[in-house]
Amino acid sequence: MRALVCSKPPRVVERPEPVRAPDEALVRVRLAGVCDTDLELAKGYMGFEGVLGHEFVGEVLESDDASWRGRRVVADINAGCGACADCKAGNAHHCATRTVLGIVGRDGALAERTLIPERCLVAVPDAVPDDQAVFAEPLAAALHVLDDLPAGKEPVIVLGDGKLGQLIVRALLSAERPVVLVGHHEEKLVMAREAGAIAILEQDLGEDHAGMCAVVEATGSAGGIALALSLARPRGTVILKTTVAGKTSVDLSPAVIHELKIVGSRCGDLERAVAVLERGRVDPTNLIAARYPLSAAEEALAHAGRKGTLKVLVDT
Amino acid sequence: MRALVCSKPPRVVERPEPVRAPDEALVRVRLAGVCDTDLELAKGYMGFEGVLGHEFVGEVLESDDASWRGRRVVADINAGCGACADCKAGNAHHCATRTVLGIVGRDGALAERTLIPERCLVAVPDAVPDDQAVFAEPLAAALHVLDDLPAGKEPVIVLGDGKLGQLIVRALLSAERPVVLVGHHEEKLVMAREAGAIAILEQDLGEDHAGMCAVVEATGSAGGIALALSLARPRGTVILKTTVAGKTSVDLSPAVIHELKIVGSRCGDLERAVAVLERGRVDPTNLIAARYPLSAAEEALAHAGRKGTLKVLVDT
Repeated sequence: MRALVCSKPPRVVERPEPVRAPDEALVRVRLAGVCDTDLELAKGYMGFEGVLGHEFVGEVLESDDASWRGRRVVADINAGCGACADCKAGNAHHCATRTVLGIVGRDGALAERTLIPERCLVAVPDAVPDDQAVFAEPLAAALHVLDDLPAGKEPVIVLGDGKLGQLIVRALLSAERPVVLVGHHEEKLVMAREAGAIAILEQDLGEDHAGMCAVVEATGSAGGIALALSLARPRGTVILKTTVAGKTSVDLSPAVIHELKIVGSRCGDLERAVAVLERGRVDPTNLIAARYPLSAAEEALAHAGRKGTLKVLVDT
Repeated sequence: MRALVCSKPPRVVERPEPVRAPDEALVRVRLAGVCDTDLELAKGYMGFEGVLGHEFVGEVLESDDASWRGRRVVADINAGCGACADCKAGNAHHCATRTVLGIVGRDGALAERTLIPERCLVAVPDAVPDDQAVFAEPLAAALHVLDDLPAGKEPVIVLGDGKLGQLIVRALLSAERPVVLVGHHEEKLVMAREAGAIAILEQDLGEDHAGMCAVVEATGSAGGIALALSLARPRGTVILKTTVAGKTSVDLSPAVIHELKIVGSRCGDLERAVAVLERGRVDPTNLIAARYPLSAAEEALAHAGRKGTLKVLVDT
């Protein structure tokens, strides 16, 4: 089968057909998304060398549990060992020996077919089209922000108008939380406004936007972290959604002086994301920037890497 | 009266007698402590130019409220405006226009006499001698760590065997929380062991000390922050107790990958500290490294600035 492999540079190559282990499902990938993490992996992050891709919607071809066969699915990308204390506590996202689809120790979904542990599968209802379901993984991560927010209905600032920031805006709005998106691209701010947010250029940040109860950092830049720390009120919350690779020069003294809570936030609950899509609370489809066939996945990756690009999909 | 003024360098000088504003008490300082913040202020931190000193025990000479006169007192160093939303919510420590004794806009206690807003006074019971009461302010800050710890009786790691780390160890032990102190000075580790903690050299950190539910950073170094992030378990808590002045090169990606909670922690509740001292739950007196008369406060500051020095007191 064809797959986009994380060589240097990544290449679409012919790979042997995946062979199922017990409890794994063989899934035909219908549609996959390119994530910034794929671009980082392509540069050598994590030393990954397998098939890329962890955002997808597919269809189960083979499985031990017959009830999965033929069903449309998405998947939790973290496959815990199932035996350690973290896994037993329902915390497989932090299992120290987990594999992660297309990121750590497990071939991904930018391929014709992929293998998914059955325990990671989440069924996609008929009401959710492929173009929405392919966003389930990043939407789950965006919705996970809600788990670390202080309660209440005070507005939250989101820094970064890229695809992650846009999904976080929609996730917060789906929970009726007012949002102020801060970005650098007027055309993306318009998209957030259409979704129901207030959206402003960073240069227009004023006194009204200081002293926020919570700030979500989704720029992936050191400047974004510093800005987030400056916008939070004393004892406020700053949620970090992106890993700035390597050491970053950050002045953490405001965190101590103002007793801020800085919370790292990574993957979320796929079932929650699918439920939000099914109820029509979020429609991410206007974030789709381009589509490529799997044969052109190298171009898809290059396109996704161009500054300012929203979601690039690969039709497998 | 004589006072240690934050000139460059700080000097003991003759100052005019302090003049009480309404609601302020005139306090005769009995004993004052030198804090690392005083050393930072002496280098220009915050641009402070008044009388240094925010750790003290004294005796009220004059006050509007007659019941304070003649009483031994310590004080909350943060004097909020009393009118803003933060102050009204009981959050004067974060009042944007607060003065801070010997740090921001208010002369401090390294002087014969000082002025303290009556609302900041805390009475010292007879059972607490001056040598203990003078630690009330830093002990309050140390006890404040308890407010951000996850519940339970799991051990907590404290990084830094200096005077703040030592007080945090004692604060945690007073709440029956097991502690592992990590430091660089065997003689200080011995002091923590005598207080009831496990105490090890950083070079002896092993597998047993990874995956902690909580880590308290009290080294004030960038290396300490990185170490703290590496020792916390997924979704664990890292409490920052010191401001590393200026930008620091820190890799925050572990905070996102492991979804850590990083909490800044500053001043605490003086009444709580006095109560802990009164009940004999903490005895900080073996942390006293030296005593100087006020006339030699310049030498006291120099002594406190020598690497590895514990608490230097000034007898006023």
